[in-house]
Amino acid sequence: MSSSPEQNPSRPSVTVLGLGPMGRALAGAFLDAGVRTTVWNRTPGREGDLVERGAVPAASAEEAVAASPLTVICLVNYDATDSVLRRPEVTAALKGRTVANLSADTPERARDTGRWAEEHGIGYLDGAIMTPTPSIGTPEGVFLHSGPEPLYAEHRPVLGALGGSHSHLGEDVGRAAAYDLALLDIFWTAMSGYVHALALARAEGVTARELAPFAQGIGAILPPLFREWAEDVDTRTYSGEGNPVTSGLSTMEHVVHAAEGHGLDASVMRATAALARRAVDRGHGADGFTRVTELLDLR
Amino acid sequence: MSSSPEQNPSRPSVTVLGLGPMGRALAGAFLDAGVRTTVWNRTPGREGDLVERGAVPAASAEEAVAASPLTVICLVNYDATDSVLRRPEVTAALKGRTVANLSADTPERARDTGRWAEEHGIGYLDGAIMTPTPSIGTPEGVFLHSGPEPLYAEHRPVLGALGGSHSHLGEDVGRAAAYDLALLDIFWTAMSGYVHALALARAEGVTARELAPFAQGIGAILPPLFREWAEDVDTRTYSGEGNPVTSGLSTMEHVVHAAEGHGLDASVMRATAALARRAVDRGHGADGFTRVTELLDLR
Repeated sequence: MSSSPEQNPSRPSVTVLGLGPMGRALAGAFLDAGVRTTVWNRTPGREGDLVERGAVPAASAEEAVAASPLTVICLVNYDATDSVLRRPEVTAALKGRTVANLSADTPERARDTGRWAEEHGIGYLDGAIMTPTPSIGTPEGVFLHSGPEPLYAEHRPVLGALGGSHSHLGEDVGRAAAYDLALLDIFWTAMSGYVHALALARAEGVTARELAPFAQGIGAILPPLFREWAEDVDTRTYSGEGNPVTSGLSTMEHVVHAAEGHGLDASVMRATAALARRAVDRGHGADGFTRVTELLDLR
Repeated sequence: MSSSPEQNPSRPSVTVLGLGPMGRALAGAFLDAGVRTTVWNRTPGREGDLVERGAVPAASAEEAVAASPLTVICLVNYDATDSVLRRPEVTAALKGRTVANLSADTPERARDTGRWAEEHGIGYLDGAIMTPTPSIGTPEGVFLHSGPEPLYAEHRPVLGALGGSHSHLGEDVGRAAAYDLALLDIFWTAMSGYVHALALARAEGVTARELAPFAQGIGAILPPLFREWAEDVDTRTYSGEGNPVTSGLSTMEHVVHAAEGHGLDASVMRATAALARRAVDRGHGADGFTRVTELLDLR
């Protein structure tokens, strides 16, 4: 956008709103890449070292967003981003500019923010960061984006300064949040299984360090199974060849029995076993556990 | 054991009881490795092609176990192995011989079977197979064993014919089952998260094949985190640096909200979020999710 007020118009520039751990990592990566970076945080005092590294501090959010064609915002959720972006002064200052919202929330909140942006003449890209703060600025970072393709193409060079891989998932603004949620669903459910397994192992006199190498082995077999199971689900074949849900259910019940025998909460595995039981009860016992994808819809 | 009735005493021999998919894979791997392999299945007719490959069919379980110093049994659970091994004729024929039970069940069932074996003068190794049937006889197989070390050392050469990696986890007969259960706890909980994520993605118009490459990325970050989290748990530090449980809980609640907004069952993530909520409610919100290992004990 040619109307942006950079001092050197050939130098790319960006504004980062929010200087929590992720916001600071983003601003730092932009600075390292030579992007003119304006920063603002609701609570002052977080910008000191970034300013030493060349960041331009802004006195207000509206001043900050006016400094760059692209504003990147990464806060805890969309209640937080709304409280910054939807103040009239900030909304007015954003007109004709673009926001890339990398905060995490639901697809519906992302789409709602997209509608707000459209109503106010603001370009809007939604996104998600799938990797932890130390990955920012390195090849390990994984960024998902969604929203209008031309807008993404326009700002892709500046976003690329963050390093890592960037995927544009489609024009539907909610799509990045949909991927994000689904991936975090996998992550947190898996981690819930892991901490439970560590508690069960401890009750059996096995330390976490003893179990960990074998747990890593289980982790390593997941990615190829994820691909295989995805084929099953898209083709709705739900093949249980070699691993019928009846067999999985038997294992799940062993886990519940052993955990509860040690006085451990087994609520997560109980819920998982109930899904497998639902498949068996409805006559799908010879299918794979992927059949459960059909049985989660309660409507 | 020098009293075994092999025709060629220098050739190793084994008996395989149970010719389901895993039993057949085990027998096939023994045959491929040149081990004299006697086979028996409760329901006749499953041994045909194994016999063509050189297996010796037995007319009864007692005849089968009498043919080899080591009997390997892999059935659906210990109710099934009990129904074979604890018949008086079979128990008598096993005296002075060894059973390696590779069936899956709880540590308490394994220990109970160990006591039965000891009472009847039978050597007993308990074990678990952590990889699917196609891995048997290949370098990918992962076998866990527990029980008396000298007994394991004696039979390790024959068990080695199954290929893959073999780990002896300790003298406590229940230890292999404890590892097995903890690892299956991780596996099935993670897979429960995956099928739920696929259903959530589908509700958002994202296909399983579209999500799968990113899901594989999530799978790839688990093994290093498993190691890191194991340190946290053994040292009871529960560091939440960069990823406090409050932040995880916020994500979990987004997943529940989005899933239920689509009419999807979110029971597994609800149970996971309840564990995170328990940590926050007890004042551990700044800790990592690993803190949950302390809060699962309900006694």
